[in-house]
Amino acid sequence: MLLPPTDQSIVARRQAIAAALRAIVPDGVVADESGLATFDADALSAYHQMPLVCVLPSTREQVSEVLKFAVAEGIPIVPRGAGTSLSGGALPREDGILIGMGRMKRILEVDYENGCVVVEPGVTNANITKAVEANGFYYAPDPSSQIACTIGGNVAENSGGLHCLKYGLTTNNLLGVTMVLPGGEIVTLGGKSGAQGGLDLLGLVTGSEGLLGVVVEVVVKILRKAPVTRTLMASFDTVPAAGKCVAAVIAGGVVPAAMEFMDRRAAEAIEAFNQPGYPAGAEAILIIDADGVEADVTHDMARITEIVTACGGRAVEATDEKQRARIWSGRKAAFAAMGRIAPDMICMDGTIPRHALPQVLEEMAQLSDHYGLGFCNVFHAGDGNLHPLILFDVMKDGEFERAEAFGADILRLCVKVGGVLTGEHGVGIEKRDLMTDMFSESDLEQQHRVKCAFDSGGLFNPGKVFPTLSVCIEQGHIHAHGGKLPHPNIPRY
Amino acid sequence: MLLPPTDQSIVARRQAIAAALRAIVPDGVVADESGLATFDADALSAYHQMPLVCVLPSTREQVSEVLKFAVAEGIPIVPRGAGTSLSGGALPREDGILIGMGRMKRILEVDYENGCVVVEPGVTNANITKAVEANGFYYAPDPSSQIACTIGGNVAENSGGLHCLKYGLTTNNLLGVTMVLPGGEIVTLGGKSGAQGGLDLLGLVTGSEGLLGVVVEVVVKILRKAPVTRTLMASFDTVPAAGKCVAAVIAGGVVPAAMEFMDRRAAEAIEAFNQPGYPAGAEAILIIDADGVEADVTHDMARITEIVTACGGRAVEATDEKQRARIWSGRKAAFAAMGRIAPDMICMDGTIPRHALPQVLEEMAQLSDHYGLGFCNVFHAGDGNLHPLILFDVMKDGEFERAEAFGADILRLCVKVGGVLTGEHGVGIEKRDLMTDMFSESDLEQQHRVKCAFDSGGLFNPGKVFPTLSVCIEQGHIHAHGGKLPHPNIPRY
Repeated sequence: MLLPPTDQSIVARRQAIAAALRAIVPDGVVADESGLATFDADALSAYHQMPLVCVLPSTREQVSEVLKFAVAEGIPIVPRGAGTSLSGGALPREDGILIGMGRMKRILEVDYENGCVVVEPGVTNANITKAVEANGFYYAPDPSSQIACTIGGNVAENSGGLHCLKYGLTTNNLLGVTMVLPGGEIVTLGGKSGAQGGLDLLGLVTGSEGLLGVVVEVVVKILRKAPVTRTLMASFDTVPAAGKCVAAVIAGGVVPAAMEFMDRRAAEAIEAFNQPGYPAGAEAILIIDADGVEADVTHDMARITEIVTACGGRAVEATDEKQRARIWSGRKAAFAAMGRIAPDMICMDGTIPRHALPQVLEEMAQLSDHYGLGFCNVFHAGDGNLHPLILFDVMKDGEFERAEAFGADILRLCVKVGGVLTGEHGVGIEKRDLMTDMFSESDLEQQHRVKCAFDSGGLFNPGKVFPTLSVCIEQGHIHAHGGKLPHPNIPRY
Repeated sequence: MLLPPTDQSIVARRQAIAAALRAIVPDGVVADESGLATFDADALSAYHQMPLVCVLPSTREQVSEVLKFAVAEGIPIVPRGAGTSLSGGALPREDGILIGMGRMKRILEVDYENGCVVVEPGVTNANITKAVEANGFYYAPDPSSQIACTIGGNVAENSGGLHCLKYGLTTNNLLGVTMVLPGGEIVTLGGKSGAQGGLDLLGLVTGSEGLLGVVVEVVVKILRKAPVTRTLMASFDTVPAAGKCVAAVIAGGVVPAAMEFMDRRAAEAIEAFNQPGYPAGAEAILIIDADGVEADVTHDMARITEIVTACGGRAVEATDEKQRARIWSGRKAAFAAMGRIAPDMICMDGTIPRHALPQVLEEMAQLSDHYGLGFCNVFHAGDGNLHPLILFDVMKDGEFERAEAFGADILRLCVKVGGVLTGEHGVGIEKRDLMTDMFSESDLEQQHRVKCAFDSGGLFNPGKVFPTLSVCIEQGHIHAHGGKLPHPNIPRY
């Protein structure tokens, strides 16, 4: 047993833990301040915290030994993929071990007969597709960060992307995982056939944000690439007309491969940034993809054009691949383009029932006036997954705090209309304190009991997801770690 | 507190509990023997057990009060939909309350804009489609029992059907549930937008076989009916050739709407039963559906025909709706047709990786010789979900026992080749004791800890799913009810 934290300086404790971890992973322990500084944040860049120690295992057995050690010593563990989380899920703890999974990046098996690929968790999302695209297959979920983000991180956050309207989130494309439980046991959930017996722990682990253990192997479904994809751009004179169109397309029984919404401010900033050819003066633009075989796509495009026109919009279809790529290049550069209109930005993430879209867009405009901050909307409209971008300047006194309050109000608005305070970015630290707006006390207690059924010590990613200081009392344990609020000294900006 | 069981006769105890339940559900308590006898089994008809009392609530508040009462008194609870479970999931306990959900059968809302329907749990699977088909929509999962089985039961068993190859199981078509926890709290998991925050308890509850609580409201996704469906019948001279064809179709990137397998014995029994026109002399037959718009279906049918031919099979496409219906009428009558070749039958349910199909079919034939019992195969080949039918005569000494042993060996075989001991029928009582073949001790312990996080008293459907006498020790409770083996006096046949 290492000495208790109070009897050691941070440095001595760091060195003692690093030495113990080096006995497990000789070539993969980071314990110097400059090395640790590279792990001090994820993509929720307002928050920074250096970990006590960082360990980078390369086998599942090493992961198991690291977890056994951490649990025996009562040291918090934060798992990390590529650190692209937008909700702070991979933010380290100053008293904890950061376990980085990036070195476990082998593609273990490509199995076309069963339509699946078996990989280690550190493989990037894009590299799964790369492994099978020569044979005409791909992995469907496509988060914007897909070149960098890892499949392990995708499992932890249940990541989505532009095409999850038709092809689902990670949970819909995941067949199995092998994971190490907090006690070090290695368990397999699901498998190539996807089916299971007993309780569906695979569904539970997907999107669990590192609270239940560490995933060391992943089996994902691959799909045959559609032979034809076509793209249509629809512009509208009012935001509600575009919102109505989104609902009408779905009510019409068409499932586009993607249906993205941009408001005027976003479209203008993007047009100024990389000139994708967005129509000037439109209050709202939809970019809609249909994919499948030729005749199927032709049918869908005709039906969508009909609906756009009936909703008072103007539809223009891309005539070739080049024009298609140009239209999408704008959408994909949206976040970068915002740099033209404001020095700082928060990207929010919530989900609403589609019919509530016009109302939500209207109320967001009122909130913008109230807080005196600009915002714009770029989001996955087809599945009601909003990504409002709040614009501010951190150098101006109070703007960051106002931006955070504005963001919280937007998420409360999502919940008010029957939606959810997250879509594909997870809860993490960002939305943790809003969980009580979404869930009743009973709901949260039940979630917490399930968390304790995996991690009775409350050592796995503590301070994330759950809003209050909870203890595993009902399970006969009391641990101050469980759901403890994060250190108040985490610097924000 | 009622008197402890030992101080009362069964009859006195039954009357005391019935009286307490009548205070909650005045018009819905069954406590007379002839009434209770109608609830003494589900579709796993080898097992019978009369419940102590049966209660039929009609509101969620009544469900909550019933559960509070049962938990306070330490009385086991078994939930039941329509009782069509094939694995004994709804088999009553002689010391327990059977809670029948069949009276809660209102369709609460049809919402085309969000593509969903909100129903009570007692609505039948077929009635969901009936509520939306006039507008061209349907609910995709289609278990054979769909006219009778309830959506609540479908959620409990994660039911599939002929078309789950393309459209998924219940879990892929479920957006939300409202459920009553063992403590009587009413919680909502998911909702119209499907997304959630925090841990995905919706995924966990789907397929949990009544172990975690009682579902009182369900939100399901509806889909636009495909404009065109076409059917192809492929016959093969050998079983492995058909197995190879199934794998080749999927590896070819085609996703048929359905892909059903029948071996010679099944096809001949069916042909004799209702003359669907199955080719004489074929060792194996595949029935394959493709659906979508005309051109899409034409493309798929051409590709499938190509693959069938390459695998040495003969493909014949149905030329009209009438012929299509005739081909399917045979498959749908398969179980009834077996009555022609054996007086009794057990329908097994396991899942295998598709590439293992030829090997599994071969080893099943060897097992058939070993046990001296006939069998035939009718199953959802596309997703590797086997339904071997074991044929026997219960009047012949030892045949039932041999049939059960044969079935268990088939499921072990599924696990051996990397598959799973269930597909769409659940574990229930039937496969409970095989769970240790599928799962390691760590796997099962983790499942059991999650079960205890909902039901620390072990009162919800005890004796189902989990194989051994487990207790919620780690949660600080010890309850003899938890996972207790079922009463040895449950009569089988």
